[in-house]
Amino acid sequence: MGPRWKGKGSEAKALGDPMSKIVSQLQSSLSQSEAQGLLCGCSVLLGAKAQEADLLNRSCFGVTITTAEKDRQWFQLSMEEAFYLHYSLKCLKIVDEDRRLMNDEELLLYMKSKKETFPDFYKAYSHLRMKNWVVMSGVRYGVDFVAYRHHPALVHSEFAVLVLSSEEEGCGGANARLRTWSDIHCTTRLCSGVVKTLLVLNVSRNGHGDGAISLSRTEKYTIYEYTIKRWLPERCREDHGLVKSESSSCTIAEDGTK
Amino acid sequence: MGPRWKGKGSEAKALGDPMSKIVSQLQSSLSQSEAQGLLCGCSVLLGAKAQEADLLNRSCFGVTITTAEKDRQWFQLSMEEAFYLHYSLKCLKIVDEDRRLMNDEELLLYMKSKKETFPDFYKAYSHLRMKNWVVMSGVRYGVDFVAYRHHPALVHSEFAVLVLSSEEEGCGGANARLRTWSDIHCTTRLCSGVVKTLLVLNVSRNGHGDGAISLSRTEKYTIYEYTIKRWLPERCREDHGLVKSESSSCTIAEDGTK
Repeated sequence: MGPRWKGKGSEAKALGDPMSKIVSQLQSSLSQSEAQGLLCGCSVLLGAKAQEADLLNRSCFGVTITTAEKDRQWFQLSMEEAFYLHYSLKCLKIVDEDRRLMNDEELLLYMKSKKETFPDFYKAYSHLRMKNWVVMSGVRYGVDFVAYRHHPALVHSEFAVLVLSSEEEGCGGANARLRTWSDIHCTTRLCSGVVKTLLVLNVSRNGHGDGAISLSRTEKYTIYEYTIKRWLPERCREDHGLVKSESSSCTIAEDGTK
Repeated sequence: MGPRWKGKGSEAKALGDPMSKIVSQLQSSLSQSEAQGLLCGCSVLLGAKAQEADLLNRSCFGVTITTAEKDRQWFQLSMEEAFYLHYSLKCLKIVDEDRRLMNDEELLLYMKSKKETFPDFYKAYSHLRMKNWVVMSGVRYGVDFVAYRHHPALVHSEFAVLVLSSEEEGCGGANARLRTWSDIHCTTRLCSGVVKTLLVLNVSRNGHGDGAISLSRTEKYTIYEYTIKRWLPERCREDHGLVKSESSSCTIAEDGTK
């Protein structure tokens, strides 16, 4: 399944304005302005002037919040987005409610305390962002993220992403998905209905999952990518014309990359 | 969401020929002919002459198998269907591969050995069948069963059914569904897409779940019914016209019956 561009000219527009360039411009701009985000519950609030707001919109970080301020646009960043800008791109400082700068480890601990799966989710988010995919919430489709080849105004999302952990044996894992066939059938059927490919990012902790979480440990996690597609036996038979009924099976295509 | 009848006259046809009557006729017919099913892996094979085959088809038990036999039609019954005819309706004897008659407890143990969740699934299946719902596999929709008000030729299935067990704490349960929000979102979105209501049958073992399985224990299980629907905040606001975007939340409507 290739990208589904929205209208004519979208593909050319995307090619002429690569996401890597936009994110790089955002990185420079935030670094220069010494941008500070305010940690607030499960999100980070960031005020931006016109040019920076434009870059945030074009690179799809955060959602805009309506305020009375005229010269600043406010953005609400998810924890993954904020930590990516802070830790991976090193262009966003984050302060707590007392306006005190938080360091990397403090932030990681805070975010994990708000969302148990945060280290895995962050690893998955940054994995896709570093490959220049635009990554947004997948809540509408019952998955963790959706991934776009470029800005959602130009193209439909191509992948529905579930984040699993290979060390999540049995009940331990917070993200208990794809453990039964009915869940796999449900998810692949929904994905095919909304023309997306189900991408499973399996975070392997390589034995660094036990004990207190730390950035040095999460650095050692690796990610394995799998796509899962429905397999309809009827479509693979020779006598296409004869068969009408539909069955539901899955084939798992493995595409393991680190 | 009410029943969606297939074409004109279907509703009248269904009303004139209630499912309870068809199943009752099937029960008499199988009893009189002393029908025997052959246990074979995860299903039971049953040969039926014309009139009985017609009743099996009309009451939706089993799927037909093509054979060279002219005077008998063969049906492949699922374990739940076979056990329902054998144990609840007392109209089907079941023999093993050596043509030896199996008793109730032997059958239950055998079926549980093939499918860990069988006692819960059987309880759910018989719960719906006893209320005269036609119950079939939900594999196409990523659920355990689908329930029809009458024969699928007359009406679309109304409920997508998931069978859970209230004692399934953590990893223990084989049917690990609806444990995370993403799974709930995925399932309710798919259900609304295929115009079905998600019905959760929660099997409570009332403390009789530990130790060896037996029919006297499963008799003590009770079933709680819940329907789960998506809740779209936009549809509940006063200014319907103003809002276009879609969000995904769930509301759980509890309708507990034993």
